[in-house]
Amino acid sequence: MAEEKVVRFGILGCAGIARKYVRAIGMTPSSSVYAVASRSVDKAKAFASANNLPPEVKTYGSYEQLLDDPCVDAVYIPLPTSLHLEWALKAVHKKKHILLEKPPALCVEDFDTIIEACSNNEVQFMDGTMWMHHPRTPKMKAFLQDPDLFGDLKSVHSSFSFAGSGKFFEEDIRVKPDLDAHGALGDVGWYCIRAILWANDYEMPQSVIAHPRPVLNEGGVITSCGATFSWQDGRVATFYCSFHSPLTMDLSVHGSKGILKLHDFVIPYEENSASFFSSTNTQFGEMDTVWGPRPNEHTVTVEFPQEIFMLQEFARLVNRIRNSGGKPDSQWSSISRKTQIVLNAIKTSIQEGLISVTL
Amino acid sequence: MAEEKVVRFGILGCAGIARKYVRAIGMTPSSSVYAVASRSVDKAKAFASANNLPPEVKTYGSYEQLLDDPCVDAVYIPLPTSLHLEWALKAVHKKKHILLEKPPALCVEDFDTIIEACSNNEVQFMDGTMWMHHPRTPKMKAFLQDPDLFGDLKSVHSSFSFAGSGKFFEEDIRVKPDLDAHGALGDVGWYCIRAILWANDYEMPQSVIAHPRPVLNEGGVITSCGATFSWQDGRVATFYCSFHSPLTMDLSVHGSKGILKLHDFVIPYEENSASFFSSTNTQFGEMDTVWGPRPNEHTVTVEFPQEIFMLQEFARLVNRIRNSGGKPDSQWSSISRKTQIVLNAIKTSIQEGLISVTL
Repeated sequence: MAEEKVVRFGILGCAGIARKYVRAIGMTPSSSVYAVASRSVDKAKAFASANNLPPEVKTYGSYEQLLDDPCVDAVYIPLPTSLHLEWALKAVHKKKHILLEKPPALCVEDFDTIIEACSNNEVQFMDGTMWMHHPRTPKMKAFLQDPDLFGDLKSVHSSFSFAGSGKFFEEDIRVKPDLDAHGALGDVGWYCIRAILWANDYEMPQSVIAHPRPVLNEGGVITSCGATFSWQDGRVATFYCSFHSPLTMDLSVHGSKGILKLHDFVIPYEENSASFFSSTNTQFGEMDTVWGPRPNEHTVTVEFPQEIFMLQEFARLVNRIRNSGGKPDSQWSSISRKTQIVLNAIKTSIQEGLISVTL
Repeated sequence: MAEEKVVRFGILGCAGIARKYVRAIGMTPSSSVYAVASRSVDKAKAFASANNLPPEVKTYGSYEQLLDDPCVDAVYIPLPTSLHLEWALKAVHKKKHILLEKPPALCVEDFDTIIEACSNNEVQFMDGTMWMHHPRTPKMKAFLQDPDLFGDLKSVHSSFSFAGSGKFFEEDIRVKPDLDAHGALGDVGWYCIRAILWANDYEMPQSVIAHPRPVLNEGGVITSCGATFSWQDGRVATFYCSFHSPLTMDLSVHGSKGILKLHDFVIPYEENSASFFSSTNTQFGEMDTVWGPRPNEHTVTVEFPQEIFMLQEFARLVNRIRNSGGKPDSQWSSISRKTQIVLNAIKTSIQEGLISVTL
C-alpha cells in the first residue's frame, strides 16, 4: 500500500521483553526502531548494541527525552504495570501512539484514563497480546462459529504456567507489589482471561469467582490462582495460571457438537507454523471399548512470527489515523478493557475471601 | 498359577454396559460368564443370544434366582445406582463377590453398609473404574512420583464429557432422578474425581466447592457440573463433566518440574495401546519467541483391553480369599469410598447453593 508510512517506534525501557519487540519491529516492513530510552544513556546504548541496532537509532538517557523527539511516532511501553498510567499518559500527550504491555493498567479507572487520553489526542492504543494476531486465531474462530462443526459454546478451560527460577522469585518485577501488583494473574492469567473472552465472542460473564488457595508471596503478589466464570445462559469457564509449574499454554473449548484444543495458544511451539485440534460429534465406539475419531490437527503455516502480524495491524491503524484523521480504532481497546475488568474482578474475589463478583 | 480358580460370574441385568463386561469376562482366563439374569427370562435369553454366549450359560428370569445359584462365585451389577444397595447386599449375603458399577452408592452411608456386609461375609468388593487397571496408569504414576521429572504436585484438571442424544435425555437411566440420581456427576464426574484423587495419592482434599451454573434437568438430575478441590498445602484441582459436549477425557497434572497430560484417560482411543504425554522443565526459548521441547509421548502397548486387567485383579483377590480365607482386600474399596465421599460433597455443594464443603 503506497500510503503505508513506516511507524517509527521509540522503546521506553530495556526490559527483557523489549528485545523481542526490537527484533519484531525490525522484521516488520511498516515499522522501524527509531529510538531507545532507559534511565541512563549508557544502559540505552548497551541495549542498542546488544540488540544490533544500527548506529542511527537514537539512544536516550530518560523516557522524557524520547517522548520529546518529534520523529517518534509510537512508543512501545514494557515498563512495570504500576508505571503504565504515568508513562502512557505522558506519551499520549506528546501525540505518540502506544503499544502497551499487558496488563495495561492496575485498575479499570486507570485504563479508562489512558483510553480517554488516546481518544482526545487521536492516537492509537493496543496492548501486547500477540496471539490475537496470529493467523491461526481467526481459523480457530471460524471453527467455533460453525454451527455444524462446533454448535453452541458450553465451556472453556485454559491454563498458562511457567516455573519461575529462584532468581525470578527474588528479583523479577512480576513478583514485586510496587511494580507488577497483579503478579501471575496479570502476567499469565491475562492470556487465559483473554482466551475465555475470545471464545465467548467477548460477551462478558455474569460473574467470576476465584478458586480456593490462590498462592501469594510475602508482598501479597499472586503467584498462582484460578477462577470460574459463568454466564446467565449456563456457559462456564475456568482457568489456572501459575509461576510454579513448567510451561503450559492450554486452551480447550467445549461446544454442543465440537471440541477445540491447543497446547501453545499464547506462543506457538514454532514461529513458522502453528496447530490446533478440532473434533466434531466424537462418540464411543462399539460397546464403549474404544472411541473416536481422534481430533484433527490443523496446521497454519505462516511467513512471520505472530508479533509481526500484531505490529502490522498496529501500523495499519496508526496509518488510518494519519491518512484519514479522526478517532483511533476502538476494537482492540474494547477487548483490552474487558480483559482488564475481568482481571480486576478476579483480584477483588481473591482479596475479599473468594466472593462471587458480579460484572 | 495353579491355584487360580476361574471366577464364575453372574450378570445382574442386561444394561448396555453389561455387553462390554460379558465380552471382557469371556476374554479373561481367570473368569467366565456362568449365568445371566434379567427381570424376564426371555430378556435374559435374548441377551445371551445377542452376545453369543454358549448354551450352557444359565439364564434366569429374576435376580434372586441367579443369586440362589450356588455355582455363581461373583456378580457383576450394572443396575441403576438407586438399586445398588439392595442388590449388592442381597448378593453379598449369598456370599457372592461383587463387581459393582460406579457410582457404587447414592451416599457414603449406603456405601459403608455394602462394604461392612462384604467384610462380614468375606467377599471381595470392586467398583468398575477400569482405567485404574490399565498398565498405562502405573507408568503415569511413576512419572508423578519422580522428584526430578515431576517434582511436587501443584494442580490437576480433568474433564469427561459426552453428548447425549435426544433419546438419551428422554430415556436413559442416567438422567432419571429415581434411578441414577447423581446424573453426570456420578456417571462421568466419577472418573474425574477419581483421577484427581489418584494424582494426589488419594490424600483427601480439605474442601470441595462446585462451580457456578451446574446444569440440572427437570427432574433435578445434574447433566453438567464442575468443581474445585483444595488441599491445605495449596494444591488445587478442577474438573468439568457434562452430557452436553462430545467426548473428551482429559487429564492434566501440573507439578513443580513436570507436566503430565493425556486425552483419553478413561477409555484409551485404542484397545492395544495407550499414550500419555510428559514434559519436564519446559521453558521459553530465546527471547520468548518459541518454547519447548514439546511433551514426550509415551506409548504403552498392551495385550488386552483394560477391562481384562481389571477382571484379572478381581479374580486374583477373589482367589486370595478362597485360598487363604480371611478378610477381603480393602485397597479398592478404600479408593472407591474416597471417591464416593467427594462425589457426595460436591452434590451437597450444588444442592446448598455452591457452598464450600469441608471434608
